Amino acid sequence: MNIAVEKVTSSKINEVDFDNLAFGSVFSDHMLECTYKNGAWETPKIVPYQPITLDPSSKIFHYGQSIFEGMKAYKDKDGGVWLFRPLENQKRLNISAKRMAIPELPEEYFMEGLTSLLQVDKNWIPENDGSSLYIRPFMFASGNGFHASPADEYKFIIATAPSGAYFSGKVRVLIEEKYSRSANGGVGFAKAGGNYAGQFYPTQLAKAKGYQQVIWTDDNTHEYIEEAGAMNIFVRINDTLITGPTSDRILDGITRKSILDIAADEGIKAEVRKISVAEVVAAAKSGELKEMFGAGTAAVVSPISGFGHQGTDYDLPELENSYAMQLKKRITDIQYNRAEDKFGWRYRVI
Amino acid sequence: MNIAVEKVTSSKINEVDFDNLAFGSVFSDHMLECTYKNGAWETPKIVPYQPITLDPSSKIFHYGQSIFEGMKAYKDKDGGVWLFRPLENQKRLNISAKRMAIPELPEEYFMEGLTSLLQVDKNWIPENDGSSLYIRPFMFASGNGFHASPADEYKFIIATAPSGAYFSGKVRVLIEEKYSRSANGGVGFAKAGGNYAGQFYPTQLAKAKGYQQVIWTDDNTHEYIEEAGAMNIFVRINDTLITGPTSDRILDGITRKSILDIAADEGIKAEVRKISVAEVVAAAKSGELKEMFGAGTAAVVSPISGFGHQGTDYDLPELENSYAMQLKKRITDIQYNRAEDKFGWRYRVI
Repeated sequence: MNIAVEKVTSSKINEVDFDNLAFGSVFSDHMLECTYKNGAWETPKIVPYQPITLDPSSKIFHYGQSIFEGMKAYKDKDGGVWLFRPLENQKRLNISAKRMAIPELPEEYFMEGLTSLLQVDKNWIPENDGSSLYIRPFMFASGNGFHASPADEYKFIIATAPSGAYFSGKVRVLIEEKYSRSANGGVGFAKAGGNYAGQFYPTQLAKAKGYQQVIWTDDNTHEYIEEAGAMNIFVRINDTLITGPTSDRILDGITRKSILDIAADEGIKAEVRKISVAEVVAAAKSGELKEMFGAGTAAVVSPISGFGHQGTDYDLPELENSYAMQLKKRITDIQYNRAEDKFGWRYRVI
Repeated sequence: MNIAVEKVTSSKINEVDFDNLAFGSVFSDHMLECTYKNGAWETPKIVPYQPITLDPSSKIFHYGQSIFEGMKAYKDKDGGVWLFRPLENQKRLNISAKRMAIPELPEEYFMEGLTSLLQVDKNWIPENDGSSLYIRPFMFASGNGFHASPADEYKFIIATAPSGAYFSGKVRVLIEEKYSRSANGGVGFAKAGGNYAGQFYPTQLAKAKGYQQVIWTDDNTHEYIEEAGAMNIFVRINDTLITGPTSDRILDGITRKSILDIAADEGIKAEVRKISVAEVVAAAKSGELKEMFGAGTAAVVSPISGFGHQGTDYDLPELENSYAMQLKKRITDIQYNRAEDKFGWRYRVI
């Protein structure tokens, strides 16, 4: 495939302080752009990062027909550039697309488009420890009309942002009992835009009470832990790691499933099963709850320092040899090409 | 409030065939635009209908933070221009805004902005019977960043489209048993963009089977009828009209509640209560199911000619004196200023 490249006339890279990167707030020089029109995806092209112009009746503004992915590019100490299980993102993008009635994107448009973009903007990939180039592939309805039906035109764009950590400081979570993230038979398993906006208000309420994230529970009984919206959730009771099964309400997280494989390899007993809130609270009270952590591309592995439930706060112990730290080290060592990759997850770009 | 008006240099109105209007696909000359920035809504202004330009990282593309309203302006035979219960839309916009963590808009920005826009584009309001000017107020996150949190900037826009009927032909519906529209504790009661995109794929599947719309049921048991996504649902069993109660899963439709008031005034017995699918199917089998219809701003009152459930199709009788037609005539007579408005619902613009 011949991907046309239109380069910037002057790079913005010297304006960026790579030692103090926030998450996803400065953007690289270029982006990949691909248009769906007349029933087909056109060949992607690389263009300078630039504004998008749309008719006010574009369906993205009205009907939330949008999906995205989150990925990272990692630079090793020799300047090699790596992706982590990119085909999983490509597949999930199309799973999300199908559910949201967006036309699926050919695999090669995604993979060749992404690797070409990274080659053009390779200098934007941070070398600092803990930083990476956050990659945001996204698709949205660009077709027009005030009729609640799928659009006839779409855009697929990949933009990238050199980024530091997603969370700063300790993460305390609130187990939610009133609001919900997703319905049975809904779109919770898709990375659909609307899944995120729906979480903002309950998360604001939780933040006002001193929590950073909400742990969502099932919408019918609020008895079972599901996910945290920006990450899947793991719970360690005694020496067993537990995470909920994926479903049509829960995102099939790539970090989540990698953590499960690594845990098995490290000899950590892990269970994939429904986790009741009652079990977590009882374990917290008895001291058997050793850890909770979130797992996701942006969050990597984020230890949770405590949780709130029905007006009571539960603190988690600070362990010297936590599973969270052990698993985080193992996965980031693979991602940054610092250790053997027995799973075949690394994908070399440069 | 002083709303600045920038007029088009030449109108597009002569290009429009007012005798053959589709729904929401041609747009009037002007739009109202209002920006939220630095913690406040700026004064709205009227500008030529024009493209919107956004950064690729604008949160509307990624997190579905968008809401809208649907309204109509009606022209009477003397050239008078009317809205129907516009304050209900204004209030609901802010109810939706709050749930989606979007800053609420002052009432006068909405009402003065809308009436000023209609004065500027009054020639775009169709005079043909059954046509009206569809009004689309919408709000979306225009602030930037790849962080799943509310934006710091928003746009509120009102665009208008001279429109004919929303549905053409008979409407057959499928009672959905696998997919769902909304969760308990979710955003189903809000006119949030993502509520609509999530319906597209199941609706495509239903269309492939010969239905125009899906009747959503509760996500937990699929035993109770909720709404049809683009409209609320009414069922007539014998001489009783029934519609489900509003909830956090069901939109508080303005047409729905007006229909209930009109029914009471017309001496039609109406019940607001949960309607089970089993009850509807049993009534269809026994011949007691006389009518089903949808009610909404776009759909007005749309008779349903039949429904599918678990592979069986049920046809509804064609009644000469249906409640649907009686109620539709009464509500449109009020909307178009053809009859007394004892409820005080009409709002004169010009």
